[in-house]
Amino acid sequence: MLETYLQNIKPLDQTAMQQAQAQWDRIAKPLHSLGRLEDMVIQLAGITGSAALVPRKKAVLIFCADNGIIAENVTQSDNDVTAIVTENFTRGITSVNALSRVCGADVYPVDIGIARDLYCSGLDVRKVAYGTRNFAKEPAMTREEAVQAICTGIQLVKEKKEAGYNLIATGEMGIGNTTTSSAVLSVLTQTPPEQLTGRGAGLSSSGLAHKTEVIQNAIASRKPDRHDILDVLSKVGGLDICGIAGAFLGGAIYRVPIVIDGFISAVAANCAVGLAPLCRDYLYASHCSAEPAGKLALNAIGMHAYLDCNMCLGEGTGAVIGMKLFDFALAAYQEAVGFSEIQLANYEELS
Amino acid sequence: MLETYLQNIKPLDQTAMQQAQAQWDRIAKPLHSLGRLEDMVIQLAGITGSAALVPRKKAVLIFCADNGIIAENVTQSDNDVTAIVTENFTRGITSVNALSRVCGADVYPVDIGIARDLYCSGLDVRKVAYGTRNFAKEPAMTREEAVQAICTGIQLVKEKKEAGYNLIATGEMGIGNTTTSSAVLSVLTQTPPEQLTGRGAGLSSSGLAHKTEVIQNAIASRKPDRHDILDVLSKVGGLDICGIAGAFLGGAIYRVPIVIDGFISAVAANCAVGLAPLCRDYLYASHCSAEPAGKLALNAIGMHAYLDCNMCLGEGTGAVIGMKLFDFALAAYQEAVGFSEIQLANYEELS
Repeated sequence: MLETYLQNIKPLDQTAMQQAQAQWDRIAKPLHSLGRLEDMVIQLAGITGSAALVPRKKAVLIFCADNGIIAENVTQSDNDVTAIVTENFTRGITSVNALSRVCGADVYPVDIGIARDLYCSGLDVRKVAYGTRNFAKEPAMTREEAVQAICTGIQLVKEKKEAGYNLIATGEMGIGNTTTSSAVLSVLTQTPPEQLTGRGAGLSSSGLAHKTEVIQNAIASRKPDRHDILDVLSKVGGLDICGIAGAFLGGAIYRVPIVIDGFISAVAANCAVGLAPLCRDYLYASHCSAEPAGKLALNAIGMHAYLDCNMCLGEGTGAVIGMKLFDFALAAYQEAVGFSEIQLANYEELS
Repeated sequence: MLETYLQNIKPLDQTAMQQAQAQWDRIAKPLHSLGRLEDMVIQLAGITGSAALVPRKKAVLIFCADNGIIAENVTQSDNDVTAIVTENFTRGITSVNALSRVCGADVYPVDIGIARDLYCSGLDVRKVAYGTRNFAKEPAMTREEAVQAICTGIQLVKEKKEAGYNLIATGEMGIGNTTTSSAVLSVLTQTPPEQLTGRGAGLSSSGLAHKTEVIQNAIASRKPDRHDILDVLSKVGGLDICGIAGAFLGGAIYRVPIVIDGFISAVAANCAVGLAPLCRDYLYASHCSAEPAGKLALNAIGMHAYLDCNMCLGEGTGAVIGMKLFDFALAAYQEAVGFSEIQLANYEELS
């Protein structure tokens, strides 16, 4: 199933990208002077296959799941918080809801693995399991569960595209998910956990040391194979990370641009790119998380954030702000006047 | 006149800042997890004197002026371009106009020193001179002209505040103004011109070498005193830089937050902070210019950009995008639910 999906990922449309570049060069301004906003639009042309770009209809998919590893006391909070915050997404009262109203994005919380059943309208229930198992003691999930969560993410992008969305951001909620993310990134990048484990929602220094040790020991016990992304995800990952990785793959399969949020999303992007390297061209980094490995997680797949706001809230908060940059870039691309219309000679290309 | 103005600059309101911090800490999210968006709002409370913050009414002031130094062949274009682009600001067809529509900002081009008279409605004519003189041969302007341009910037902020604006960005248009900016920054930071001179709107490598040499020689001839900002501005500066520096001072005098755009604006911020160090607390950096000294210009006054978009267009384009961050930060500050409202225990402070 997953293999069939991945075979549908094709490279960006080079012709559309050249046309978009030519359109930028016609605009009355120094060449390349809008920098990465220009690159953003050129990539978008490559994704959609056209340099004639329409405004973006935006959604943020928030993958909510619990993590068995919290039994090891690696967090301040417990599963209750995952459930409460998820319910608050549906009530429109969280930080990501507030930011999404400014951005003009619709918020879609998804239960991909919350430890209990929640009954609230507006929650998309795609539960793969009632949380993962404690990966200090046993694999977090089966390989089949990992694939199911990934395929759920792929399917969600397909559905959102069919509903008219053409720009999607990822977010997550799940107590313990900086622990799973640090574990996955440690394995994938062969970086010691102490270099990429952070305080999450606010651990003390002794809590941080304990969290790091739990990750070290769990990796040593589970022995994930870094060349096998599904092995890594199922042994030390989380259902939210799997779902987000699926959303990234879905972007590449259905040719929808996807915006990466913070640390957890960036780790999921590493997984998606590991499964299908071409997927990277369908992704945009939004901000660089304040988590210690936020930058490393992006750099590991050659990505660089637009925003440097020292945020580490999750929920998709950074990605929602990042989505607004598309409105700016497209406005300049489509509304600014060309050299030819104002009798101004083009600036020359650098020599 | 200027001295009287500067005596009115007071420190930020610490009480309001503490109240804003307390408000952030009541919101149901990990402490400090919105990072610099939280800092942005706390500073705004300090500027306005109240933690009860209203939405921002936004304006971008675009200071347009010509520079006599272009007689030395340091640019691709001539004064015609300053005039044409300035006129285009009033017609709403430039890049900054397009971006301002997305941001919800009003665009105010100001003729503070264009080399000719322009007759177009929507241009605010505050002409100090018909361009500056060629500072390779003589001082760019008199000390009185520099003061007049600075006071114009101060006055414009006062007027915009009276018109209801409570967030102002700076922009500029003036062929030759990366040359003046590099010269001013070289003197202020005692950095050799070759380290902070760039290609501006698109110089060739030989053009860049010539531009650097012109700046070196002019500084050697004019001998500006780096401890005397007005001496530096009048000898090797530009009327746009003076006007922008005035806008920054005006922000501090009338307690209006001002957003710095790119390289030229950041150099003007160095001048403003040199004239009145407290002014710095009223400023926000938006993006880091792709000009080689973009980062240095911000770091020299201890500032750090929110956006890393590799832009170097000027006009206020980066600052206009930066202003949108205030809408995001204020939405989270005002709309996100508190811990007490959802029966969730606060996250603990780090120990």
